[in-house]
Formats: sequence, structure tokens, C-alpha cells
Amino acid sequence: MSQNFERLFDDVCHHARRAAMLTSISALLEWDERVYLPAAGSEYRAEECTYLAGMMHERWIDAKFGDSLAALAESPLAVDPASDAAVVVRRLKHQRDKKIKLPQSLVEELARTAVLGQHAWQEARKQNNFGMFRPLLEKTIDLKKQQAEALGYADCPYDALLDDFEPDERTANIRRALRDLREQLVPLVAAIGASAKRPKTEILKRPFPVAQQEAFGKLAAAAIGFDFEAGRVDVTAHPFCTTLGPRDCRITTRYHEDFFPAAFFGTLHEAGHGMYEQGLPAENYGLPTGEAISLGVHESQSRMWENLVGRSKSFWKFFYPEAKKQFPQALDGVSLDDFYFAVNDVRPSLVRIEADEATYNLHILIRFELEQDLLDGKLAAADAAEAWRDRYRQYLGVGSPTDADGVLQDVHWSAGLFGYFPTYSLGNLYAAQYFEQARKELGDLDAMFARGEFRPLLDWLRANIHRHGQCYTAAELVERVTGKPLSHEPLMRHLRGKFGELYGV
Amino acid sequence: MSQNFERLFDDVCHHARRAAMLTSISALLEWDERVYLPAAGSEYRAEECTYLAGMMHERWIDAKFGDSLAALAESPLAVDPASDAAVVVRRLKHQRDKKIKLPQSLVEELARTAVLGQHAWQEARKQNNFGMFRPLLEKTIDLKKQQAEALGYADCPYDALLDDFEPDERTANIRRALRDLREQLVPLVAAIGASAKRPKTEILKRPFPVAQQEAFGKLAAAAIGFDFEAGRVDVTAHPFCTTLGPRDCRITTRYHEDFFPAAFFGTLHEAGHGMYEQGLPAENYGLPTGEAISLGVHESQSRMWENLVGRSKSFWKFFYPEAKKQFPQALDGVSLDDFYFAVNDVRPSLVRIEADEATYNLHILIRFELEQDLLDGKLAAADAAEAWRDRYRQYLGVGSPTDADGVLQDVHWSAGLFGYFPTYSLGNLYAAQYFEQARKELGDLDAMFARGEFRPLLDWLRANIHRHGQCYTAAELVERVTGKPLSHEPLMRHLRGKFGELYGV
Repeated sequence: MSQNFERLFDDVCHHARRAAMLTSISALLEWDERVYLPAAGSEYRAEECTYLAGMMHERWIDAKFGDSLAALAESPLAVDPASDAAVVVRRLKHQRDKKIKLPQSLVEELARTAVLGQHAWQEARKQNNFGMFRPLLEKTIDLKKQQAEALGYADCPYDALLDDFEPDERTANIRRALRDLREQLVPLVAAIGASAKRPKTEILKRPFPVAQQEAFGKLAAAAIGFDFEAGRVDVTAHPFCTTLGPRDCRITTRYHEDFFPAAFFGTLHEAGHGMYEQGLPAENYGLPTGEAISLGVHESQSRMWENLVGRSKSFWKFFYPEAKKQFPQALDGVSLDDFYFAVNDVRPSLVRIEADEATYNLHILIRFELEQDLLDGKLAAADAAEAWRDRYRQYLGVGSPTDADGVLQDVHWSAGLFGYFPTYSLGNLYAAQYFEQARKELGDLDAMFARGEFRPLLDWLRANIHRHGQCYTAAELVERVTGKPLSHEPLMRHLRGKFGELYGV
Repeated sequence: MSQNFERLFDDVCHHARRAAMLTSISALLEWDERVYLPAAGSEYRAEECTYLAGMMHERWIDAKFGDSLAALAESPLAVDPASDAAVVVRRLKHQRDKKIKLPQSLVEELARTAVLGQHAWQEARKQNNFGMFRPLLEKTIDLKKQQAEALGYADCPYDALLDDFEPDERTANIRRALRDLREQLVPLVAAIGASAKRPKTEILKRPFPVAQQEAFGKLAAAAIGFDFEAGRVDVTAHPFCTTLGPRDCRITTRYHEDFFPAAFFGTLHEAGHGMYEQGLPAENYGLPTGEAISLGVHESQSRMWENLVGRSKSFWKFFYPEAKKQFPQALDGVSLDDFYFAVNDVRPSLVRIEADEATYNLHILIRFELEQDLLDGKLAAADAAEAWRDRYRQYLGVGSPTDADGVLQDVHWSAGLFGYFPTYSLGNLYAAQYFEQARKELGDLDAMFARGEFRPLLDWLRANIHRHGQCYTAAELVERVTGKPLSHEPLMRHLRGKFGELYGV
């Protein structure tokens, strides 16, 4: 009997790995499309991706696969919920159940609306006219509500949508953490804004030759632990990280000749994502035990390396001499302290993707609150642009004069991605909480960074987070590793400590 | 009835286009492997390629597909053999029949031996020891004989192997053309060797900065007609051309800082392949009517642009001023005549891939003769190294002191590619024959090249060769376009004219 289950389990794993192989192949097609595909090739590429998507869907909804998962879920193999077999079966079954629950007509309508929505959004943004996008936003919200109803949820429809990005997380839990964060962060940002101390940000806007930026970025990525034997960096308009195989992780960046931070911290950020992927157990590739937990945990790794490590004083104690070697003209006469302050400029602004470490979470909070209100019907789509302006004034103290720089600035809603935004802030919260714990366990991280030693931190992340794949939920893991549930406190301690010193607040 | 056949034909085309889509996806995986794949990613990539190969094979041997092709071959749609439908059915059926005829055990044995053979060849070459490779060569020859017997052939086993690369061509026909060529080419090469006139080849071995080589190569490729909207150039150790979709053709090259010709003429060569692919009817992509005729015809396009155009005096009348702008130091004081002579250096040598326009065919001839003898049993594998040396002395007047520079220099036999070599010389013969015809029809091509006008020639190739896909065989097409069967005479006229003038012979 038990042997039969083991064979069934092997079949299920083989089936899942085959589906993952198609996903990996599709990921290469998409990577190539964004990095190297000649312009005229995009039409056929889209057909190829659709063809593969159809094959993947067939494999997922395969009836025998479903029956096997159902049988295994009730089998002795799944009795211990923490066992690898139980995790694989539970997570695969969960994903398959979701695909089965959504009617094909709704899936197609969502896909079609996402395409139309993005076109409408691009045009509306260009014309700075929210009204042009409003009908599509209404349609999208309606479909997302239908999606939530079809999938089912614990407390509120938002839970169902959140699950795609942050499995097993509850909206109420995030709401609590972000509300606590907001209460402390808004006054801190206001205090920083009122401070007379200002970094000399113009030092970062001098000419930084691209070839040197590239060399320096790769040197730093390799130094913190990104494995170039199993990965590479290319150039794209919109940086991203994608995994094409168990030992093939690709990241991208974008160089601005006249602005140093974008490419450098972008590279550290994507390398952080990449190092998580490279730290997952390769032998479990294609199974939930070889996959990242959630977008929030993923973002915690990128944010940790970008901000908690990459924007720390100790990091620059080690790297600044190299920076001066690479950019002798731009950094001529610039002290380490001035440089460090400049890369930590805090400045309330209208645009999320340009936001600094402190204000970033307020941008997210606004989106998180608004999308819940839109889905709950508390806010009409027609009033979204005005609600957006209100909250920017309230949380960040900045006015939002135009729709293009306001409610139309992000692609997410037009692509149907509701429930995605909070993962950015979860990333910041998890990053600070894990980092604080790592410091407790490893000792003086700053002294290590100042000596160029990043391996102890990476090894700690590997052992405590990466190697587990999806064996724990994000909430379980943070409690297991740090002894506490998700909290705003470590992030606030970090921000208060760092910016308190820099801005004298 | 006829309507039913038309629906059946549509189904067959859809099936073939789907199989071609898998081939295109696989081609991207292979392109990426050769250009950008991180080292550690190759194991998983091999698994992906095997997985896709299995899917493609399944689609090809699909019984319903076979039945449909058989029914269509006897249907009214196939009555006119020159109709698109007849061509599609005939060529698809031919390809499918070949796949069905080969026993699975033989296919697997061939694949396994090719892998082992390439390993053994690499090692033997490194150790300069043909004896280490001999057993695998014997095994390969034995399997290729089995393959030929399984496939069946008209005159000799070599015909069956040739068909993979040069469909419908006969060994006897190639033998005749190359024998005639040899009889006239051996004395010409000897006369050139005896000439006192020598180009100053050292001018090509000065420092040519890679960035400028890249810019100049792309400029020239675009000028002759390679469409960068539907293609790109990347860097690899072994240059190649691959097609990833109806409007996506990728070529590669390799830059040597201290040797100008390799990358530049390599780029023109691959661009020539690419322009053929770009000239095939995109709407027939995935069908025989949208595919190149044969490797020989493909090579005729690359050789024409590389040699007949790219190494002509008129080409350099137009491009030399630009070359001097790109490489002011290397070409300082070098006259157009000296440069033109240097890129047309004729020098009998041991190594095929370094051979010039005149001697290249003698390298091919030797391989073509030897592989026929090996398959016919006239030559024992054990004696191949010595036979190689004999013919190099006889045809090229050079001794071959080592196995590594002799019989072990090419990868082809170790990979099981018997019947491939003659397509290189066919390419040269077809190139000269088509070029002579184009000159007859278009008038003074040299005057056009000297003005930078390459479009008339490309349009002529598009109209006479590219747009037909596989509607004609190589032999049919050359007769249709030039009025004569394949002949050695146009190539000899070209070589005598050009090198007679340069070397005074």
C-alpha cells in the first residue's frame, strides 16, 4: 500500500517537474523577448508563449494528476504536514485546485481585459487622463471580484487575490502591520522633511561612465554572493530577475550615465532576488520544496541586499575606495560621509519607483488601502484619482497635480494585479525583521561588511530561509526564525536609527 | 470530396506549423546555450532540449498525420507537382517517411555514438592521436551504413546520407562536378603557389579594436541587406546562423583584435545565410514552402556575399574609405590595392576553416572522396590518417605532419555527419553560377557595388531563389534560373579571372 503511494508520489513529482520545465522554457522565451528579441520577432514569440501556456494548462488540469494528488493528500505520506512529501502534495493540490475552480470563460475574460487594460492605461497615461482608463478599471474590479468569489476566501475577497502572491497570508494581518507602520512612519518622514540637514545629491548626478558602472555593479554583485557561474546580468528598460533552470538565474539592470544609484542599487536588488533563487535546493527544482515562499519573502531578500546591506555605512567603508577607483572624476574630492548621505537621501515624492527606503512604504500603503476600498465597493473607480491625491497629501505631504503622476503611474491594476502591492512592503518588513535576527545570531555584521565579508549573512539566509523552499508559509517561517510574528518594529528601529543619525531627528 | 481534401490539407499544415514551433523554441534554447547560457545551466538545458525533441518526434510520427499525408499525396491537390500544396505534401511525407523508416534502436545508437564520438575525438585531437578515435570512427561508419540501408537509396549508400543535407541530390552528380573542378583547380593553385607576387598580409594582423570591428561589421551587414529589425548579431566561439521565427534570424561572429578578416568576412558570410532566411516567405514559415532548399543552396548565399561580393575590388572601392575611418592606425598608408590583395591571399594550407576562396574546395574534395571510400569499404578506418596525408600532398602540395592538423581537424565525422562536407563546395559552385547569371541579367554589378548598391543583387536572389522555398530542388532551380545544370565552369572562370589578375598567372 505504502509502496503504491510512493510510486504515485514519484509520478506526481515527475508530472510537476515536466510542467515546470515548460514554465522554464517559457521563461527563456520571455527573458529573450525583453532582452534581445528583434522588434519584428515579437508577434511569433507571442504565439509561441500562448502555445506553451496551453500545454502547461493541459498538464495542470490533467485528471489523473488531480486524482493522484487527491489520493496522496489522504495517504500516510501526507500525515506529517512538515514532511517534504506533504508540502509537495499540499502546495501542488492547492495550485491545481485554484486552476480548476476558475471557469475557462473567466480566465479568458481576465486575460483579454488585461491586454485591453494595459493599452487603455498606456494611452490614458500618455494623455494624462484618468477618465480614459476608468471603464477598464471598473471592468477589471468587477472581474477580480468574480475571481475572488470563484476561488473562495476566509475573511474578505482580497484574501483570495492575495493568495496568488502571498500564499496563506491574510489581509487582516497585513492591514494591522501596515497600519502600525503608518502611525510611526508618517511622523518620522515629516520630521526628516523638516530637518535642515540635506545630503549633497548632486554628486550622484555627475557623469558615471556606463562601462565602469557595469564593471563595478558586477564586482559588487559577485562580492555579496551572486553566482555568475549560475547566472548573468543583462540590460533592459525595466529590470527584473527570472529563473530559467536550477542553476540558471538571470537578472537585468539599466544604466544611466548621469545618475549613479539607479543601476548600482538596482543590480544589488536583483542580485538579492537572484541569490534567493540560487539558494533554493536545486534537486527540488520544479517542486514546491524548490520554490520561493512568496513575493513578500522574495522582496525581503532583494531589499535586504539593496538597502540594509547596500546602503549601509559599513558596506561603503569597504566599497568606497573601489568606487573612487572606478569613477575618479565624478567622486573627486567627495568624502565617504557625503557619499553615504547622498545615497540615503529621503525625499517625499509622487513616484513610487523613485522613492527612498523610508517613504517607499507609504506609497505602497496608499495603493493597498485604495485597492481594498475599490474591491469592497467603499470607493467608486470614478473617485480613485481624487482619493489618490488625498492620501498623498495626508501620508507624504505632497500634492499630486496630474493623473499621470498619480493614480495612473503603476502598470499593476491595468494588468489585473490586485493584491500584489502589499508584497513590496512585506518585503521591507521581513527584511528588517530577519536582518535584526541575523545580527543577533552572527554578531557584528557591520564589522564584517566593512571587511568585505558578506558570506556569513548569505549563509545564514541560505540556512534559515532559502533551503526550505515552501516548507513553511511566510508567517510560519518568520516566527520560526525570529521567534516573533511579522512586526513593524524592526523596520522602524532600523529607519529611526539610520535616519535619526543622518538627519538629526 | 475536394473540400474534404482542403480541410485535411489545412490540418496537415497546422500540424506541421506546430512541430516547427517546437523546433523554433528548441532553436532558441540552443542559440542561448551557445551565446549566453551560464556554465552551470547546461545540464538542465540538455534535459529541456531532450524533452522538446521527444515532443517533436511524437508529432512527426503521429499516425493521423501520416494517414493524412498519404491520402493527400494521392489526392487532386497533389496532381500538379509544382503547386504549393503538392510541394508541402511531398516534402512533409518524405521527411516523415524517413523518420518512420529508422528503427528507434538505431536512432538511439546513433545519438549515443555521436556523443561518445565527440568526446573521443576531442581527446584524440588534444593528444594528437588518431588511434584513440579510430574505434569510434569504425562504429560510426558501421551505423551510417545501417542508416543508409534502412532509408534505402538510388545508386549508392552515400545518396541516402546526402539526402539529409542536399535533398534529391545524387552522389554521382556531385562527384562529376567536383572531379571536373579538381582537374582545373589543382594546376591553378599550383601556378599561384609558384607566382612571385605575394600580398602584404601583415597589414591585416595589426591591432583592429574590437568595438570598431563590431561597428564596421554591422554597418556592412546592414548595407548589403541584412535586416536588423528581424535579426541580430552576437558573439560566439564558433559563428553560426539560426532562425527562431519568421522574422527572427540570429547570426554570430567572433572578433580577433589582431586579425581583421575573420570577424568581418565571417559576418558577411553569416549575414548571407541570414538574408536567405529573411527572404523566405514568412507566411509559409513552418512549411516546406517557407524553408531553404538545401545546405548547398544555403551555402551559396553565404559564400556569394562573403567572397564574390565581399572580397571583390568593387566592394572595397565603396567600403575602404569607411574602413580607413574606423581603423586609422592599422590602415595608415595602406593603399586600396594592397588591402584588396591582402584579403585575397591564396595559400595552400592544412586547415580547412582557414582556407582561402581558391583552395577551400580542395579541402572539401579530400573529405568527400575519403568519406565515400570509408563507407564503400575501399578505405579502412585504420588507414584514414595516412590517406588524408596522401591527398593533401597530391591536391594541395602540403604535407600533414600531425593527426590533429590532419584527419582529426573537423568535428563532422565524430558527430555522425557523413554527407555534409560536399555541401560546402556545392555552395561555392552554385554561388558562382548564380552570380554569373545575375551579372548577365542585372548588368554591371561591379559599378553598383562601387556605389554601395547591393539591393539589386539581393532583390534578384529574393525573386529567383529565396521566395520559392522548397518548391524546386537545388538541381531544378539552378537549371531553371541559369539555363544550365550545376557546373564547375562559372567558379573556375571567376577564380581564373580574379587570381589570374592578382597573381599574374
